Amino acid sequence: MQFNFITLFPDKIHSYFASGLPGKAVDSHVFSVNVVNLRDFSQVKTARVDDTIYGGGPGMLLQVEPIDRALQSLGDRRGYVCLLSASGEVHSQKLATELAELERPLTFISGYYEGVDHRVTQHLVDKEISIGNYVISAGDLAALCVCDSVARLLPGFMGKQESLLEESHNQKGILEYPQYTKPSVYNDWKVPQVLLSGNHAEIAKWREQNRKKLDA
Amino acid sequence: MQFNFITLFPDKIHSYFASGLPGKAVDSHVFSVNVVNLRDFSQVKTARVDDTIYGGGPGMLLQVEPIDRALQSLGDRRGYVCLLSASGEVHSQKLATELAELERPLTFISGYYEGVDHRVTQHLVDKEISIGNYVISAGDLAALCVCDSVARLLPGFMGKQESLLEESHNQKGILEYPQYTKPSVYNDWKVPQVLLSGNHAEIAKWREQNRKKLDA
Repeated sequence: MQFNFITLFPDKIHSYFASGLPGKAVDSHVFSVNVVNLRDFSQVKTARVDDTIYGGGPGMLLQVEPIDRALQSLGDRRGYVCLLSASGEVHSQKLATELAELERPLTFISGYYEGVDHRVTQHLVDKEISIGNYVISAGDLAALCVCDSVARLLPGFMGKQESLLEESHNQKGILEYPQYTKPSVYNDWKVPQVLLSGNHAEIAKWREQNRKKLDA
Repeated sequence: MQFNFITLFPDKIHSYFASGLPGKAVDSHVFSVNVVNLRDFSQVKTARVDDTIYGGGPGMLLQVEPIDRALQSLGDRRGYVCLLSASGEVHSQKLATELAELERPLTFISGYYEGVDHRVTQHLVDKEISIGNYVISAGDLAALCVCDSVARLLPGFMGKQESLLEESHNQKGILEYPQYTKPSVYNDWKVPQVLLSGNHAEIAKWREQNRKKLDA
């Protein structure tokens, strides 16, 4: 799978894939990352890619033309195009799974400033995605969040443990009971005795009793 | 305001605050960023900070001891401690506003692997936060998202336009109607004529008619 990022801040994207599980996954060819600097597609010498809003209003918008040209530069590798935007569909584990199953390149366009020219949404984008009901200052973190949520579902990302892990998880993908690791006592904070007992039936019972009610 | 990050990947945090609006805000002393490498507080030579799960289960947990020691190293600058975790309260604009109004340092602990020893949540954390109903491979992006959503509400982050911007936004903080910038025609995609008319009453009417229904 290929992930393309159209961004004003290539370094922030490269840095994310330089270490940790995302870095290992790139090194193991679980997916590839291609970062496109939107400023390279400006029509003006100053590399400006934004302008004021027709009809008035504070702030600036990203222009349609540099985004269109950046997408064209990807050719067939453009794949499915996602715009990160506060007004998009709120991201979910379901959407992450759908995107992972597309088996096409994914292209993420980071929004900035007041947003992007509406013609981008109308003509160039397959899906407008928001990472939640809060506002962040730029779309890059949002693009990375959506990408990571998809990437970790790809075969090879989590290693062989993946199938095991999923079995013990709820629909949201998380464990539902408290977990502890060494040491068994720290300060005067103790791990519940039953978890140290080796009695698998009692452990399963304790976990069931301490299960959190979580939204899927 | 001070933001502390307790992380296994300091470079990813530093990179985020090296450019763009977050970078400018650091340079202008709107807030300061302090990155703590959790591995510096490992008790073992290998700098390991995780171990297997009591009672069984796949994967590893972050241990309570290195996290406690990392927090202690912050002294009074620890402030209000947030753990990024898939099982936390789902982040919202309301929570971002509350955190911005605390006027205390904020400390973000990134979760990894299967999560953290439950004693961290019980004894060391003020708030467990999730960025949404989806799973990502590590807590660093989540910490940056929450931090950014708070940071952009601080005086000076957005410059003088902030108050103007907020007036034209809904509760979620976003504009509710389509916006366009230059050029007025691209390919055969045209900006609605009314927005080019200079007739402010007609523009306001068009925007009201094209307002999206969005959740707050």
